[in-house]
Amino acid sequence: MFICQYSEGSWKLPKITKYEPFEVDPSLRVFHYGQAVFEGMKAYKDEEGRTWMFRPMENIKRFNISSKRLDIPSFPEDVFLSALEKLIALEKDWIQKGEGNALYIRPFVIATDNNIMANSSSAYKFMIICSPVQSYYSGSIKVKIEQHYSRSANGGYGYAKASGNYAGQFYPTKIAIEEGFQQIIWTDSEQHEYLEEAGTMNIFFRIHNTLITSPTSDRILDGITRNSIIALAKQKGIKAEERAIKLQEILEAHHKGTLKEIFGTGTAATITPVSTFGYQSNTYDLQEQQDSYANMFKQLITDIQYNRAEDSFGWRYLVK
Amino acid sequence: MFICQYSEGSWKLPKITKYEPFEVDPSLRVFHYGQAVFEGMKAYKDEEGRTWMFRPMENIKRFNISSKRLDIPSFPEDVFLSALEKLIALEKDWIQKGEGNALYIRPFVIATDNNIMANSSSAYKFMIICSPVQSYYSGSIKVKIEQHYSRSANGGYGYAKASGNYAGQFYPTKIAIEEGFQQIIWTDSEQHEYLEEAGTMNIFFRIHNTLITSPTSDRILDGITRNSIIALAKQKGIKAEERAIKLQEILEAHHKGTLKEIFGTGTAATITPVSTFGYQSNTYDLQEQQDSYANMFKQLITDIQYNRAEDSFGWRYLVK
Repeated sequence: MFICQYSEGSWKLPKITKYEPFEVDPSLRVFHYGQAVFEGMKAYKDEEGRTWMFRPMENIKRFNISSKRLDIPSFPEDVFLSALEKLIALEKDWIQKGEGNALYIRPFVIATDNNIMANSSSAYKFMIICSPVQSYYSGSIKVKIEQHYSRSANGGYGYAKASGNYAGQFYPTKIAIEEGFQQIIWTDSEQHEYLEEAGTMNIFFRIHNTLITSPTSDRILDGITRNSIIALAKQKGIKAEERAIKLQEILEAHHKGTLKEIFGTGTAATITPVSTFGYQSNTYDLQEQQDSYANMFKQLITDIQYNRAEDSFGWRYLVK
Repeated sequence: MFICQYSEGSWKLPKITKYEPFEVDPSLRVFHYGQAVFEGMKAYKDEEGRTWMFRPMENIKRFNISSKRLDIPSFPEDVFLSALEKLIALEKDWIQKGEGNALYIRPFVIATDNNIMANSSSAYKFMIICSPVQSYYSGSIKVKIEQHYSRSANGGYGYAKASGNYAGQFYPTKIAIEEGFQQIIWTDSEQHEYLEEAGTMNIFFRIHNTLITSPTSDRILDGITRNSIIALAKQKGIKAEERAIKLQEILEAHHKGTLKEIFGTGTAATITPVSTFGYQSNTYDLQEQQDSYANMFKQLITDIQYNRAEDSFGWRYLVK
């Protein structure tokens, strides 16, 4: 693991050590006030055994955007990238070749002052840990369109990859799971009229042959997979709209048969198709599409990630 | 400190140990997904040297209400109360007599699974730590009426005393401090039209001789000091309204000279008077009142807390 501590206004000497526990004080600031930010990344192995990251600078930049909102000092981009490279180079033998296999990489930062003053910490611990993984979700999922709970507020920190955005999702998700779903589609906190984001994923709708996803905002994570799919869609000549999506529009499109697909996107699962969505007491099934966009984009992205296709956007990053 | 661990569906044997650090894994669930809830309480010493808590069952109940929203198992109320009593009895020599002196007590619970699965932890650590304190704030404060950032959403967990509610406040508060204020008055996330809560306190407005405070909701903490002041106001024959408060109403009342006082309430500071509030680029001063409600309620509450007055509500709790 990689570790770097912040105190007295600066980041100290970073080091890579074996993965090991560390001592904390019960008054550790993050336990009480949740100043904590993370990223999720993956490294992939190609058929020749070379190891690749996918758009690492995007994660690094977002990490610092998240940190700013949580009043955590930014971590130097160059040190961050070099830490990733060194750590992955050390751990790359854990990565299996083949679709779905990867090294999951978790950079995170936590507030480490040892007192419970309700303000920003003066000390932080930045760490990167990693672990070999296979696909996060498998198959398609059933999602519930949430009508009571909310994930985030305008002016809040929903766009940040901060621990507190996850803490609030577990209880509503548990209720959804008890009702037979796997995830929630979050709606706006005002009227629950707009479809915004799914559990830990951004969400795309395909109506006819147009892709639609919510614009990023205070409330919505600026997903790197999301962004990549929009770019790939444009390259493929598929219309991709970033705009507010009314629940009513989706219900009507389903009724008319023009709602072809819904899928979630994120680093963990790349793309997860939705087979069924639930709204109030009804459930709505989606037919499998012969020309599934979810499958197509998953193929396009993983071909780039696993170095099986040309990388016209320059998204791959070779780990030496 | 008091410590009790949860695993395999139940709370294990609790114990009281010396205050000491403990080992954690870098993948400790709370570092990544913020499942953490706390309470803030105080124990007071009277002139005869006896030690008192103030409405401890209210904190215990709220702790479990917060935990439920964060999908954390509830902690048995009777064990909680007995833990508080035993720990305070051990630590009571640290408490000084006299106004403002107290033992600050911090019960908290954190998610302790050692992996970064994005769901509710199966293991938790419940702890109570404490420390002697004097008054948290002193004197009156300048507050900024926030017009961009938000603390919480409808359907969110703003009512819970959860770590993630504090993490998001530090950055906007830092901006306010740079502008010459000490705290923020949070407004609704939709139009920033309604005045809701201050930093770590509930907020009261006095127009003529009527007290007004926001009703509790998904977004607003059900403060115990808040609740106590409403009860005391009713006992004193002072009109206390729990209703939505429009910023515009407060600006107009200030203009007409009928806005007499604003004050924040919370365990840490009991009551903190506001001397000035800022809205957009203007600041609005409040005159000191001869018959200050802030002073009167602070006296009434601290007289009960320090056993200097009759306790007609039964709020005091003797620690034996």
